[in-house]
Amino acid sequence: MAHADAHVLIVTCASRPGLVAAWSGCLFQAGANIVEIDQHADLAEDRFFMRIAFTAAAPPDRAGLAAVAARFDAHWRLYPPRGRQRVVIMVSKFDHCLADLLYRWRIGELAMDPIAIVSNHPREATQAVDTGDIPFHHLPVTRETKPAQEARLRALIEETGAELVVLARYMQVLSDDMSGWLAGRCINIHHSFLPGFKGARPYHQAHARGVKLIGATAHYVTGDLDEGPIIEQDVERISHADTPDDLIRKGRDVERRVLSRAVNYHLQHRVILDGHRTVVFPD
Amino acid sequence: MAHADAHVLIVTCASRPGLVAAWSGCLFQAGANIVEIDQHADLAEDRFFMRIAFTAAAPPDRAGLAAVAARFDAHWRLYPPRGRQRVVIMVSKFDHCLADLLYRWRIGELAMDPIAIVSNHPREATQAVDTGDIPFHHLPVTRETKPAQEARLRALIEETGAELVVLARYMQVLSDDMSGWLAGRCINIHHSFLPGFKGARPYHQAHARGVKLIGATAHYVTGDLDEGPIIEQDVERISHADTPDDLIRKGRDVERRVLSRAVNYHLQHRVILDGHRTVVFPD
Amino acid sequence: MAHADAHVLIVTCASRPGLVAAWSGCLFQAGANIVEIDQHADLAEDRFFMRIAFTAAAPPDRAGLAAVAARFDAHWRLYPPRGRQRVVIMVSKFDHCLADLLYRWRIGELAMDPIAIVSNHPREATQAVDTGDIPFHHLPVTRETKPAQEARLRALIEETGAELVVLARYMQVLSDDMSGWLAGRCINIHHSFLPGFKGARPYHQAHARGVKLIGATAHYVTGDLDEGPIIEQDVERISHADTPDDLIRKGRDVERRVLSRAVNYHLQHRVILDGHRTVVFPD
Amino acid sequence: MAHADAHVLIVTCASRPGLVAAWSGCLFQAGANIVEIDQHADLAEDRFFMRIAFTAAAPPDRAGLAAVAARFDAHWRLYPPRGRQRVVIMVSKFDHCLADLLYRWRIGELAMDPIAIVSNHPREATQAVDTGDIPFHHLPVTRETKPAQEARLRALIEETGAELVVLARYMQVLSDDMSGWLAGRCINIHHSFLPGFKGARPYHQAHARGVKLIGATAHYVTGDLDEGPIIEQDVERISHADTPDDLIRKGRDVERRVLSRAVNYHLQHRVILDGHRTVVFPD
Repeated sequence: MAHADAHVLIVTCASRPGLVAAWSGCLFQAGANIVEIDQHADLAEDRFFMRIAFTAAAPPDRAGLAAVAARFDAHWRLYPPRGRQRVVIMVSKFDHCLADLLYRWRIGELAMDPIAIVSNHPREATQAVDTGDIPFHHLPVTRETKPAQEARLRALIEETGAELVVLARYMQVLSDDMSGWLAGRCINIHHSFLPGFKGARPYHQAHARGVKLIGATAHYVTGDLDEGPIIEQDVERISHADTPDDLIRKGRDVERRVLSRAVNYHLQHRVILDGHRTVVFPD
Repeated sequence: MAHADAHVLIVTCASRPGLVAAWSGCLFQAGANIVEIDQHADLAEDRFFMRIAFTAAAPPDRAGLAAVAARFDAHWRLYPPRGRQRVVIMVSKFDHCLADLLYRWRIGELAMDPIAIVSNHPREATQAVDTGDIPFHHLPVTRETKPAQEARLRALIEETGAELVVLARYMQVLSDDMSGWLAGRCINIHHSFLPGFKGARPYHQAHARGVKLIGATAHYVTGDLDEGPIIEQDVERISHADTPDDLIRKGRDVERRVLSRAVNYHLQHRVILDGHRTVVFPD
Repeated sequence: MAHADAHVLIVTCASRPGLVAAWSGCLFQAGANIVEIDQHADLAEDRFFMRIAFTAAAPPDRAGLAAVAARFDAHWRLYPPRGRQRVVIMVSKFDHCLADLLYRWRIGELAMDPIAIVSNHPREATQAVDTGDIPFHHLPVTRETKPAQEARLRALIEETGAELVVLARYMQVLSDDMSGWLAGRCINIHHSFLPGFKGARPYHQAHARGVKLIGATAHYVTGDLDEGPIIEQDVERISHADTPDDLIRKGRDVERRVLSRAVNYHLQHRVILDGHRTVVFPD
Repeated sequence: MAHADAHVLIVTCASRPGLVAAWSGCLFQAGANIVEIDQHADLAEDRFFMRIAFTAAAPPDRAGLAAVAARFDAHWRLYPPRGRQRVVIMVSKFDHCLADLLYRWRIGELAMDPIAIVSNHPREATQAVDTGDIPFHHLPVTRETKPAQEARLRALIEETGAELVVLARYMQVLSDDMSGWLAGRCINIHHSFLPGFKGARPYHQAHARGVKLIGATAHYVTGDLDEGPIIEQDVERISHADTPDDLIRKGRDVERRVLSRAVNYHLQHRVILDGHRTVVFPD
């Protein structure tokens, strides 16, 4: 459920009585009308998470909200209606996720402005995708050039004011520094299996092991590339008759589906980071 | 997410600003701690639905809640913690749903007390199921005896104080009177297909039509037996190789899964009726 | 499982002993190596369906196969390796299925040559999609112009030698004549629900009814537009919180997924028509 | 698709031209009528697997089949119609899989004779399940008694002629010796996640990691308990709101569903072992 005209308030704090009453009361006095409220009280960890979408004739008074936040020692953020995040999409040779994100953007599904496409391969590598006028940056990476190229990437992000980086099957591992700098604003997609496999050529490993399901996981990037907080996951059924190439083909479908959902949730402020995990209020 | 110790408050009214603030404020003043809040604002229909689960040292003051309700002209109900509904389960020859419900009840998944099993067939028809000490009532139905048998059923429900009737593959159509009397407290399960089929032997029709998915729908009973407000649905994938008997077998799995979920949602007060549809806050 | 180098033999006949032995024996003597065999014996209807994919140094002797066919009064077809069907894609304003088909074609997933895009709307209506060099034909349809436009469409199909027509959310109903002429070589996609809905604005009807799943069905076109033999179906879970617009958005995902699977099965000769139903041997 | 009256022939060998022709020809000459044929040619590994279900007035001549097998150096087995395997079900405290298997057996879904239930806990531990007349064996296991108890288990299997052992949430690890002795005739069920987790309390680990799907895997037992050849897998969607207890509850559903499917496939001779993986021809 997307309310294009709604402000979104995100609150995180320790779980205490009166939280919903205090925040909703403050919004009511500010003339707001709540159209969607999701909360999660993690009683075991004593943590509280809330997302409120509300309409209002005028933006609510931040001082009033800050006063409530101070009372509960809460972390809070307020997002205006119709916000569109500036997004950098990074890609290597496989462009199915890129193609999917750009199509969804063009028909208005994703509230983003793609302000750059970055690839470690030249533009020809992704020629199946119409990237239109979006600036394309070729940043080839070797062990030697990695620090310099990451510096260029960082400069690009800073200069463009990018708020989100999407690794749309970008096959280079970001450095720990870069991952740390991007914490909470960089989403990666990777294949997932039951059980998991370590190392190279995972679809070949899954084939050798005879798994009956292949999956994909979208997560925030942390230093440990494939181990960040999970945003979304899904699977596809396969069989013994599928070759590794078939698995790769079927994997494309679940990868692009999972990544686009995760990006959409992030853009709608439906994901709240909670240490190693996330709270996700799906639309 | 089940909070066995939580009270549950259900609110339905027209959508107006201040609803969340008013109800949560009232609960806070009553010493309650909200552990789960779900709401749905149907802006097109101007309807508001809310479910609040809260813990409290003492039951909240009903007068305070009634005052809030009066202010918003709201319909409200309050359920105490650890409530177990008294349930009548009705069955014919197919007992897979009955078996599943009783097993889940025995291991504590379903907050109910099955106080009667009613069948239009004798006990031997469901002998694959261990019904233990639950009273079994054989109410055979013919066109002639139907009014009398429905009167006995009604008496049984009234005498036992049953709060919910589950039609667990009960193959007799209830009369309009009976359906109306049970409105909102009687759940039925039936097969569903894409597209739907009218008339007898639906699995045979689905086979003849070559459908690739079979499904099941759990819904509240209304006069129009298979058209009441939908609580839960699910599907299973099938193929041309499945005979009608295979469809019936595979249908059993999805029927029992969908019915048990629907019953569980109802028992946890997660379903709110809204005319021809429902608002369901899944656990 | 796709074997690009394999010939494909399709056999349909009455079910009789010795069928597999006769056909596989004939292929063996012709020097073929079977890499994939799927058969379906519909014992109730006394029908037999078989798909054999085989590699061979040289194309097998058609006379030998014809002799086997004559013995069993069988309908048979033989397709060479690496065959690519010529395809006309028809579209209206919603271009998500078109975009998906073209992307899959570009990366080599679909063994087709799109030789024309036909729309009843001008090219600008589908501008979110890069149609590259594929000829675009604007054939606007009114009640008066329909016969003439269908004649143009028919001429286009004949002139280009198109073997398959894909209705990729083409919102015009083909005439009975046109549907009949395209029988078995025209695939349509449409939304499906449990239960089904007749008439206009089906997503709005589904919303009003509170369904919990929405689906899509790909089928061969017959005179009865949405009732032809089903090739593939799938569903997505939804909730009360989804507005009709949300349903339409979520429907796009399942529509494009189901249509691309159906087209792929058809292109790989994995679908055999059987009256009102199909036999599908999925990859 | 189950043909109760069908013989089942299983063939495994190196992939060579003429295999289908030779076997089907031999069966035809023996008067058999093939009702179902599934084959898998693993071209990368040069392995061939086939399952043929056929009806015949009389059992086919084994000498003829043996001659074909000799020609291809094939491993083969022939199973008579209406075969019912003798099965030992092992369980600990969680009895949802046991309850499900016994119910399916009672209504005729599983072609087995449960000839013993073995538990490391006393009968009272599984009192939610009606085990009827099936002999119950309490074999408590400690580090000291394990060899002796496994000897008793082995004697039980030998004396009863059990052909299959199902570990229906049996929480003791079998010794390497026992696992090796039971290779290919012992099915285990365990939870699975994306990614996988090692060590104790996996549902708690999954909760801490914030996974969005939980799954289950049924596999043949090998020395490495949870790493044997996979027969079947499935998943359930979960959310941040699910406590570890909720995960355990939702895990029960997927565990019992996956195990019963795997056991059914095994009983119908639809699973062929292939080193570390399986070939499964689902019904």
